[in-house]
Amino acid sequence: MIYPNGLFLLAIIPHVLALWPIPTTLKNGTDFLILSPTFDITVNVNNPPQDLLSAVAQAKTYLNTDKLQRLVPGRGSSDAGALKTAPVLLGLTLTLQNTNPVLSISEESVQDFANRSEGYTLSVPSNGKPAVLSANSTLGLFRGLSTFTQLWYDLANVTYTNIAPVSIAKDVPAYPYRGFMLDTARNFFAVSDIKRTLDAMSWVKINTFHWHIVDSQSFPLVLPEFPELAQQGAYSTSEVYSAADVQDIVSYAAERGIDVLMEIDTPGHTAIIAASHPDFVACNQASPWSTFANEPPAGQLRLASPATINFTANLFTAAAKVLPSKYFSTGGDEVNTECYAQDPQTQAELKSSGKTLEQALNTFTEATHGALANLGKTAVVWEEMILDYNLTLSQDTVVMVWISSQDAALVAAKNFRIVHAPSNYFYLDCGAGEWIGDDPSGNSWCDPFKTWQNSYTFDPLANLTSAQTHLVLGGEQLLWTEQSDPNNLDSIAWPRAATSAEIFWTGAKQPDGSPLDGTEALPRLHELRYRMVQRGVGAIQLQPQWCVVRPELCNLNS
Amino acid sequence: MIYPNGLFLLAIIPHVLALWPIPTTLKNGTDFLILSPTFDITVNVNNPPQDLLSAVAQAKTYLNTDKLQRLVPGRGSSDAGALKTAPVLLGLTLTLQNTNPVLSISEESVQDFANRSEGYTLSVPSNGKPAVLSANSTLGLFRGLSTFTQLWYDLANVTYTNIAPVSIAKDVPAYPYRGFMLDTARNFFAVSDIKRTLDAMSWVKINTFHWHIVDSQSFPLVLPEFPELAQQGAYSTSEVYSAADVQDIVSYAAERGIDVLMEIDTPGHTAIIAASHPDFVACNQASPWSTFANEPPAGQLRLASPATINFTANLFTAAAKVLPSKYFSTGGDEVNTECYAQDPQTQAELKSSGKTLEQALNTFTEATHGALANLGKTAVVWEEMILDYNLTLSQDTVVMVWISSQDAALVAAKNFRIVHAPSNYFYLDCGAGEWIGDDPSGNSWCDPFKTWQNSYTFDPLANLTSAQTHLVLGGEQLLWTEQSDPNNLDSIAWPRAATSAEIFWTGAKQPDGSPLDGTEALPRLHELRYRMVQRGVGAIQLQPQWCVVRPELCNLNS
Repeated sequence: MIYPNGLFLLAIIPHVLALWPIPTTLKNGTDFLILSPTFDITVNVNNPPQDLLSAVAQAKTYLNTDKLQRLVPGRGSSDAGALKTAPVLLGLTLTLQNTNPVLSISEESVQDFANRSEGYTLSVPSNGKPAVLSANSTLGLFRGLSTFTQLWYDLANVTYTNIAPVSIAKDVPAYPYRGFMLDTARNFFAVSDIKRTLDAMSWVKINTFHWHIVDSQSFPLVLPEFPELAQQGAYSTSEVYSAADVQDIVSYAAERGIDVLMEIDTPGHTAIIAASHPDFVACNQASPWSTFANEPPAGQLRLASPATINFTANLFTAAAKVLPSKYFSTGGDEVNTECYAQDPQTQAELKSSGKTLEQALNTFTEATHGALANLGKTAVVWEEMILDYNLTLSQDTVVMVWISSQDAALVAAKNFRIVHAPSNYFYLDCGAGEWIGDDPSGNSWCDPFKTWQNSYTFDPLANLTSAQTHLVLGGEQLLWTEQSDPNNLDSIAWPRAATSAEIFWTGAKQPDGSPLDGTEALPRLHELRYRMVQRGVGAIQLQPQWCVVRPELCNLNS
Repeated sequence: MIYPNGLFLLAIIPHVLALWPIPTTLKNGTDFLILSPTFDITVNVNNPPQDLLSAVAQAKTYLNTDKLQRLVPGRGSSDAGALKTAPVLLGLTLTLQNTNPVLSISEESVQDFANRSEGYTLSVPSNGKPAVLSANSTLGLFRGLSTFTQLWYDLANVTYTNIAPVSIAKDVPAYPYRGFMLDTARNFFAVSDIKRTLDAMSWVKINTFHWHIVDSQSFPLVLPEFPELAQQGAYSTSEVYSAADVQDIVSYAAERGIDVLMEIDTPGHTAIIAASHPDFVACNQASPWSTFANEPPAGQLRLASPATINFTANLFTAAAKVLPSKYFSTGGDEVNTECYAQDPQTQAELKSSGKTLEQALNTFTEATHGALANLGKTAVVWEEMILDYNLTLSQDTVVMVWISSQDAALVAAKNFRIVHAPSNYFYLDCGAGEWIGDDPSGNSWCDPFKTWQNSYTFDPLANLTSAQTHLVLGGEQLLWTEQSDPNNLDSIAWPRAATSAEIFWTGAKQPDGSPLDGTEALPRLHELRYRMVQRGVGAIQLQPQWCVVRPELCNLNS
């Protein structure tokens, strides 16, 4: 049985699909198909790159070790009869349609957005004939492998699917930027934590690790040109990212289809630089902090100081030159004007140069973005750099909208490209109340918790004209870590952070044009959560297990 | 230097104390004192019970392995000079004041509240003379050992304190019940998860593990007399607590000063019993569930059925008889009258017996509580059993107030003993939004998140007259697990659940009479969190680490 639309099928037979994000095109049946114990993956690619072979090996490992029982009452035990006579799939063949020189996954993953090819075609016949995965790039093959591994369940060590045949004519992402942001400055995360997160990201086809690596609280990034920044600014000598650590993370990410977008937030959020370069920082730890910054400690780069501008440009160069990404974030959020108003040096420099603060910021931005341009990199900024100041930024600059989803329209009106990172939908850390001390009411500006249901209702094109839709590069969910650490990283991020992964891969609309539907999605999100746990990521339950295996009985009116 | 009040000292020298809960009496200085590498604990007790010796061994292990660096900038490196000349503590002596036969910690921990002696006296001289810990019971010695291990920091493998001498003339709990509730029915937790939680509980002197072991969603409790309940009602054959598991948990708890208060919630919250005994359950999985229950699936014991009453009494007997605790919870929350109104069998039984539903509930309760009384056990119930129905419950019944903290006064007016478990202060699970499907708004009745600051403002005596204060046994924080599982158990519970531990040990007022103060508490809570992490419990950060080592700079107006 072939159905015209897998989502239509879902409405009839609940939770038949475990795919996340759901492919943009999908036909599937309801036949059983067993993965042979000798199942193998053939790479029909000349001189296949090593990371493709590694990805194939990883996919085979997942197929062997996922051991996910179906999430139905009985956990699939009633499938035993059907499995006795089910056809057996012996192999999957990977082919590249592209006749150009073969690039590795790692090379494809760090291309400019316009040159990244992530689509693939997948066919899994139900009669035991070999499955075929084809794409125009090794990165597309990697995405298809991720999909393929999500098809399979376990029953008494038999690996099988119950939705054969599967035909994905073309699965291509709706948006080129699908990200996850981690703040490693408020609290530190080990390389192993980041790698585990990169694994989880790759499973849901997230392609950008936005690494908010430093902030006012700590500077864990070890730069050979500026070793003093981490020496004086890291929480400890062990809570650092060495140059080798950064390369390790960048390589690990790229092999998994993920570009590392590093951020060094400037000119605000830089108090910790004062620990090694006090001359470059205004209002360092000034009191009360709330006058000078959105959170303690206060401290901003002296943007009107030529020495500080030079330092910052060199800092960007040092950090960015070793990264393969075409993008680098210079931050730009929450610049505090009072900090500069009360800084005698900045006031003197403004006076001597005859510039307003905004003009000085423009000079600062031109110089520091210029350093990135010299490396062939495009700057990414937070929305204030576009909306709060009149700066002569390159129109190529990518703008992250965080304050409110409503601001996307304002950015689009200025014809800048947008990455959606709205606090009201995608901030994973919100909802834990205030962390500032001496505040018994304990309310936070970003309360309440952003439920997966809320995140999943986000519309990337809301309030935009059809002429502006091309400006939307995608979006990301974000974990600021004032109240997080490695102990809750997995549980606060997963499976919630998969909601944006689907919105920006599949698009905010189902193939039949209706909006994404949480009721349809929840069973798939359960499957994803369980598969993540099987693979070592501590994603949490969204419902009692009773409901997980009977989601249709735990709806509002069921 | 001896200060009259450790809390006063705190106001002068921030975060000098790492004790949690803070002792009810405390004098301390600011001298450095090193724990000798050959430090030993002498148990000056005749025929010391094995669990006391185990507790001593565990304390020595913590002293060796905690390795907690001081939470100040530099993490204590500036202490190096002082440590060169600091006196060395060679030993701690434990003595029992009691001349009665020596009971083990395990025996003391399961006594009636009135007969539990948890107080202790501790003296740690600053000159290197032996420290002395004395108590009237082995349980008191255990509490004192917990305090003693919290005094110590590490710097380059030197274990030391900087608050010697320490004199705790008498540290006694303000309330006899200090609990933590875990729901193992909505989602399952392994024995190892429970043991890790018991460890954490013991560190903060929590003395009751309220084990909400079964509910409508699953019945993981294996009872030899009723094996079918778990066979049909557990999530799987591996997601069960065998009789041996229960004994393992009970023993592990008792050795750590913790009584296990098991709950089998009745007559509501029992749908899963229908899987093996459909005759005993009304409105099983009736639709829409919201008409018949507060969450899916619906299903309640047929309280008017003699067979069901007999079954329930036997069930309580089977579960309670193997537990050493003097208490057993019969539940009683959220009884749904519509379930019974629409159940023909219940209506027929009411009619034939000539009873109202309330009268039938009274019969049910008398019989099932009677089974516990026959075992010498006191029943614990949720507040509805007292406030919503006119039942002839024994006045000894302990009542848990959960719907609102305001209801405590209503329970006190009926002269019942109270355990505070208010959802508006102590529900650890609140704040994650709605988990019911098909509800895009995603709001939950128990939003928002109960911050530690909020929990810490709870006053056990609010709205009670002085004549009623004796009715307050204590309180507990609770983790309902619709949206929790082992992956977020530690991070959602700790260090937040320590706030009630302090309120009910130290009392809601500081020794000087002022209310407990979150600003004073936060540095100690940070210390506790770090010590928990060192000991293997994944408690989360409450602030950026920058603030953790400088809490005074992260207050609202600092």
